[in-house]
Amino acid sequence: MALIDEIREQPAVVERLLQRAGHELEPVARLARRNRIDYAFIAARGSSDHAGVYAQYALGGIGGLPVALATPSLFSRYDAAPRLRRCLVVGISQSGQSPDVVAVLEEARRQGARTLAMTNDPASPLAAAAETVLDIGAGPERSIAATKTYTAQLAALAALAVALGPSRERHEALARLPQHMAEGLRDEDGPSELAAGYGDMDECIVVGRGYNLATALEWGLKLKELALIRAQAYSAADYAHGPIASFQAGGHVLAVVAHGALHDDVAALLERLTEERRARTLVLAADRAGGATLAFPDRLPEWLSPLLAILPAQLFTAALTEIRGLDAEHPRGLAKVTLTR
Amino acid sequence: MALIDEIREQPAVVERLLQRAGHELEPVARLARRNRIDYAFIAARGSSDHAGVYAQYALGGIGGLPVALATPSLFSRYDAAPRLRRCLVVGISQSGQSPDVVAVLEEARRQGARTLAMTNDPASPLAAAAETVLDIGAGPERSIAATKTYTAQLAALAALAVALGPSRERHEALARLPQHMAEGLRDEDGPSELAAGYGDMDECIVVGRGYNLATALEWGLKLKELALIRAQAYSAADYAHGPIASFQAGGHVLAVVAHGALHDDVAALLERLTEERRARTLVLAADRAGGATLAFPDRLPEWLSPLLAILPAQLFTAALTEIRGLDAEHPRGLAKVTLTR
Repeated sequence: MALIDEIREQPAVVERLLQRAGHELEPVARLARRNRIDYAFIAARGSSDHAGVYAQYALGGIGGLPVALATPSLFSRYDAAPRLRRCLVVGISQSGQSPDVVAVLEEARRQGARTLAMTNDPASPLAAAAETVLDIGAGPERSIAATKTYTAQLAALAALAVALGPSRERHEALARLPQHMAEGLRDEDGPSELAAGYGDMDECIVVGRGYNLATALEWGLKLKELALIRAQAYSAADYAHGPIASFQAGGHVLAVVAHGALHDDVAALLERLTEERRARTLVLAADRAGGATLAFPDRLPEWLSPLLAILPAQLFTAALTEIRGLDAEHPRGLAKVTLTR
Repeated sequence: MALIDEIREQPAVVERLLQRAGHELEPVARLARRNRIDYAFIAARGSSDHAGVYAQYALGGIGGLPVALATPSLFSRYDAAPRLRRCLVVGISQSGQSPDVVAVLEEARRQGARTLAMTNDPASPLAAAAETVLDIGAGPERSIAATKTYTAQLAALAALAVALGPSRERHEALARLPQHMAEGLRDEDGPSELAAGYGDMDECIVVGRGYNLATALEWGLKLKELALIRAQAYSAADYAHGPIASFQAGGHVLAVVAHGALHDDVAALLERLTEERRARTLVLAADRAGGATLAFPDRLPEWLSPLLAILPAQLFTAALTEIRGLDAEHPRGLAKVTLTR
């Protein structure tokens, strides 16, 4: 199955997952609602780590649960694991194979912490190490670059957030997600035609903030892995207070300008780069506000927007990879399963 | 006072700080040792955020305390602060002015969490918001790029780590730190002469892992802010499993190859990039292992190495800034005090 097919599958994958994720995660969520769990401790790598960044906002902002992103080498290499008390330790990994992520879950379980694996392989070492397993059920992902397993992980985390902080409004918004994702993928020609103008882009920055910092990081990684573009992804807040000094006049800026609390902040950075440094901008946004825009549907609340915003970015990157004469199925020097010790 | 003077001051600043930090942090550390605090929740931006990355390893690996890095916008912009139970909320900021970091501490205090400010201004809003204040006492830092306040923050966190996990060996190592820092700054000519060969470097990657991931991030930021080099900093583990695809043949790699558990991993990545992609390498290391090397003293345990490794990197970057004809005191488009809402 080709990359484009895996991109197209996403609404169906998320729909299947949402039919059972809330139910399967309820026992874990109940512990947190009853104050038996005080924070989440998430171990992940690569795209799964970007899902972890989404979790910081979704579990924190919707579910009220603070999130710590693990530094797995303390467990796997330094033999210096911290004490994990009153926390839910979550391993996120498509393959469930990475030894360092497995090491975090194994140590957490040894210490008596609650453990949860979110993986595409319920027979993996990660699943074996965890007390509770959520099979994200995305089906085989053959392309090296993660697409449907990334959005499935986001959907699983959104379902966990709603289970932690339930309301009728949130349940309804989540239930509408798959149809909005399908709508967001309907136009494949738009992103593809836009990509035609970027065949010679060799480097760029990608900025986002808040819920869509994860989108900027994930888009940046896809651009690097597939299209071999030296993309630097940043929080718009961090970028404006340091890295911006090094921005090259006339360079490319890709920005995720989602609706919501931080819309104006990202837009202001974009304006500054355009006016002061003649930046060439490409905007991933709900509103087609002039210039080059990849649009995504915005009729769901901001906390679900990362599941919609990434879709045209995936289509754009897949098309750009082809335009640049590269092989989307076999990126240079990469293996599908990450084995970090 | 010029940047180079602030760089030179660092051993004295750290020596003064270490004379009182352990004592001042003892009440907070005691709460954690008695299991009244289960994790640290750190809010910071820029170089202070890199100190937060060091804290993940130092508090976690030496002090046994897991660390969550805050996403301040949940507090300052989304009005969706998570519940902060049984945690120590730490704000790290040179100026103590950034509204988003202050918002985290104010909300934490409102919720009844323990709060600690590490700041260079005990009269700042951040200090006013916190129950416990550690004045890092670095004296006025006039240069826009943080140097002595960064290492002072690392030293404060190292002192907290030792207070959390005390041992005679650790106290002794910490006490020897200032003299090793002074030794590491003795040779200013070496980094300066090396920098002469990098005047035309416009972009590079900077890699590190474990305790010295913070060093890679901080070096990368200095290169961007001062020398206007488009430096992308990465964990060596993350870089090898995705971003590496986009590495440009013949490009520059700057690597922090500290002694300790992850030495061979970073060295292996460097070898791979050299053999497969003809990378031009510059190594920040204890051992002068051929090629371009910035050396730092390695006779302290690895957990203190970030305080030593950054010193020649600062000297190199300051010299490179001059070589490139840039103004180290007033980087392009930056202000000293970061005011992120």
